[in-house]
Amino acid sequence: MKIDLNADLGESFGHWILGDDEAMLDVVSSANVACGFHAGDPATLVRSCAAAVERGVIIGAQVGYRDLPGFGRRFIDVAPDELYADVLYQLGALDGIARSVGGEVAYVKPHGALYNAIVHHTEQAQAVVNAVAAYGNRRRTLPILGLPGSEVLRLAEVAGLRTVAEAFADRAYTSEATLVSRREPGSVLHDAADVARRVVRLVTTGELTAIDGSTIRMTADSVCIHGDSPDAVGMALAVRAALTDAGIEITPFAAASAG
Amino acid sequence: MKIDLNADLGESFGHWILGDDEAMLDVVSSANVACGFHAGDPATLVRSCAAAVERGVIIGAQVGYRDLPGFGRRFIDVAPDELYADVLYQLGALDGIARSVGGEVAYVKPHGALYNAIVHHTEQAQAVVNAVAAYGNRRRTLPILGLPGSEVLRLAEVAGLRTVAEAFADRAYTSEATLVSRREPGSVLHDAADVARRVVRLVTTGELTAIDGSTIRMTADSVCIHGDSPDAVGMALAVRAALTDAGIEITPFAAASAG
Amino acid sequence: MKIDLNADLGESFGHWILGDDEAMLDVVSSANVACGFHAGDPATLVRSCAAAVERGVIIGAQVGYRDLPGFGRRFIDVAPDELYADVLYQLGALDGIARSVGGEVAYVKPHGALYNAIVHHTEQAQAVVNAVAAYGNRRRTLPILGLPGSEVLRLAEVAGLRTVAEAFADRAYTSEATLVSRREPGSVLHDAADVARRVVRLVTTGELTAIDGSTIRMTADSVCIHGDSPDAVGMALAVRAALTDAGIEITPFAAASAG
Amino acid sequence: MKIDLNADLGESFGHWILGDDEAMLDVVSSANVACGFHAGDPATLVRSCAAAVERGVIIGAQVGYRDLPGFGRRFIDVAPDELYADVLYQLGALDGIARSVGGEVAYVKPHGALYNAIVHHTEQAQAVVNAVAAYGNRRRTLPILGLPGSEVLRLAEVAGLRTVAEAFADRAYTSEATLVSRREPGSVLHDAADVARRVVRLVTTGELTAIDGSTIRMTADSVCIHGDSPDAVGMALAVRAALTDAGIEITPFAAASAG
Repeated sequence: MKIDLNADLGESFGHWILGDDEAMLDVVSSANVACGFHAGDPATLVRSCAAAVERGVIIGAQVGYRDLPGFGRRFIDVAPDELYADVLYQLGALDGIARSVGGEVAYVKPHGALYNAIVHHTEQAQAVVNAVAAYGNRRRTLPILGLPGSEVLRLAEVAGLRTVAEAFADRAYTSEATLVSRREPGSVLHDAADVARRVVRLVTTGELTAIDGSTIRMTADSVCIHGDSPDAVGMALAVRAALTDAGIEITPFAAASAG
Repeated sequence: MKIDLNADLGESFGHWILGDDEAMLDVVSSANVACGFHAGDPATLVRSCAAAVERGVIIGAQVGYRDLPGFGRRFIDVAPDELYADVLYQLGALDGIARSVGGEVAYVKPHGALYNAIVHHTEQAQAVVNAVAAYGNRRRTLPILGLPGSEVLRLAEVAGLRTVAEAFADRAYTSEATLVSRREPGSVLHDAADVARRVVRLVTTGELTAIDGSTIRMTADSVCIHGDSPDAVGMALAVRAALTDAGIEITPFAAASAG
Repeated sequence: MKIDLNADLGESFGHWILGDDEAMLDVVSSANVACGFHAGDPATLVRSCAAAVERGVIIGAQVGYRDLPGFGRRFIDVAPDELYADVLYQLGALDGIARSVGGEVAYVKPHGALYNAIVHHTEQAQAVVNAVAAYGNRRRTLPILGLPGSEVLRLAEVAGLRTVAEAFADRAYTSEATLVSRREPGSVLHDAADVARRVVRLVTTGELTAIDGSTIRMTADSVCIHGDSPDAVGMALAVRAALTDAGIEITPFAAASAG
Repeated sequence: MKIDLNADLGESFGHWILGDDEAMLDVVSSANVACGFHAGDPATLVRSCAAAVERGVIIGAQVGYRDLPGFGRRFIDVAPDELYADVLYQLGALDGIARSVGGEVAYVKPHGALYNAIVHHTEQAQAVVNAVAAYGNRRRTLPILGLPGSEVLRLAEVAGLRTVAEAFADRAYTSEATLVSRREPGSVLHDAADVARRVVRLVTTGELTAIDGSTIRMTADSVCIHGDSPDAVGMALAVRAALTDAGIEITPFAAASAG
């Protein structure tokens, strides 16, 4: 049995440091590296990509809205042709940096408000899919990592792109297997041991306890671990240890190519 | 006999339009397309690259300082590792866009204050060279277009990169074959017919009249035509017509590869 | 009889020039000067404010979303406390510049997508009102210029701020006296003589012909003239001439104080 | 006996947190609050100013180059008229926010590379002085806090502005009473007890031991404490305690006005 663990990295900006990239890279198999539009100055991206390549961690492009002051967490009503170009720009920028250190961008995971918008927003979802498809045309096509049942994964499949479903280690789910809104109490789980047990159960049985106590089924090829909370590294280590103890291999869903 | 003509393109930004890309693309053989740091939002870059590819004009990456308010025309004392990463980021971003429309970045021409700084500034020149070399490692190496005798071209040669020397159609030269400073009277030439004659003479004889009336010798593989002055297109057309009339072929110095 | 004419100014940014501020300042009585978040670098703002003060044109703060690449024309889901602070920041910045040249900010007109959002978006409208009220506390309160019937003007009145209703010279209205969406044909009027006649009729009779041919009633203290279309200055001059010919005084709704 | 203690505050940006403003505000009498150009999003500035006003700490405008990616620590060759406008813009923006919470900008302290540049760079120093003078014209004039002997303080005096000389608590000085460059070993002092003793000696005797062991004389109206190093708060508390123990009153050099 095996699973991929992913986390957000490269989210510092100039003098402002965010998260502990080195520590998280010892836990995850896939790194969603920022692309400069919501976070990640180029020098940070060089360092994050180099550190990922050193450890054999796969690099994904964490594309987002152009919004440094809002950290990409505010919906922006970008026109599809502008969003298309913004995503393409970010993909190329990160890929160039990844290749300069011997890696490459191996998948795409939209960030923050863009991630949430394209669960439902057809036009923006299509723009992201088109950009990934246009970029991928020149070599193998990049898979998109996203929420099961989202509009973006549906459109990606229509476009012939590979899609990868992810679950969130520290988030509560409804009985319909959707995420409990962050505005509701109990939406984010804080107990590392509890989170670790949930992830092991999900990977081994495909089951999860919903917020109302019911049991739901879910298939995920990757589990997202948040890296920017105070105890992020502790929880990440707990999840990794529990998976390893259960005999589950932590391995990337996307293979690194020869580049 | 043949020569390359280059001009700056893709320098609009969002709602702000600068220059007439379509018109200049009918004149030049090489387009120095902005990369988003001094100008060029991603949607503009998609349009400019597509228009260049349509006309068979070669695309170069016009990398610059990160300075939209200053249009890249103000020296910034960027540390070498940051400049290195900034150039790499811009190269990848534009290349991804160029490839999405069937083209590719075929050379690098630094912009504005960066262009001027690396005529002398060894550390920044080395950072630019290192970035181009690191980017190029993954395929054929990109040539750098610059000022003959500049530090950046010297270091590029040391690094084994191809260098391409350019002359400026509308700028006066000293008797030592250096550019007359823009602050001095007569530094910029405004008469289209005169400029066209100078370019033809330069290409056919390697000679140019300096500002003091003396004759200087200069070798250039490309001639830069400015595209952002009011009469830019008119002067560009005059230069192209004069070259064609003189039987000189206008052709890019860099071949487009299969990508 | 008298009316105020307002137009957007100060919308250049660095090397990118937009509109003809000098020409528009000879037409309008109130200048909505950008505040740097959607357009308007500080040096441009100094020049625009100085030119307005020279001609006795009143300065308003054209506050907007923080979005240079989108020119403030894309809705951003900014949290109220952030929008509050963004508006306050812009008000102070422009007012400092206006005062340095002997003027002052005399009113507030939200820009672009923010203008449209706060017609309906209560939380963002309240944030703008709160910022204007908080800024005004230290001297006379600034009036808000906006769409009659909008949420922002309603909340401004609740907060005890003065509100000023505006009509758009070159926009078609529905029979319910709301603006015809820009996406529908006929929403923007291009005939300068026609536009001039409509404005004179509106000011003298309070009547306007809606897009369906019906007659609607509307009260406006200010008429907005767009300054960024190719024939903007021509249309603006036509409107001014028609008003003057009809014996209507063009005069600001907001008096300049001693500062 | 009395002295002012100043530190940099408000240097977070959106999701990126820098320094512990609350803790430093319990130590200093004057807060150099960022103005958004090198750090400090508007919502951060509102919070920092409100916290300063609550504690009776005086607010200064920490104006800087427009350079978020470089945190204002890179020299930019800005033209004087642009720098003038940039400083004016920042002063008004912060002052508007300070006034909305019952405070006001009471002095100006240039930040980072701008601080260093205008020790020698006459044109940029004059631009800063002119902006402060132009802003101050509308009420009492703001004093400039800077390095003794610097060009900016000299020009400020010529312009009739009040100047305030500062010393750095944790920096080594040469025997000529200039700062030892950060590139040299021993330039930054890390021992809190040692730094506290130096500050007490400086305030009580006007003497300091230079890096070569010699004794130098220095007059300072304010002592700068850095707030962004890991042990910043600890050192700041040590300095404050030592001054208090020595019977020295910590009090702002600039009085808050009625606003």
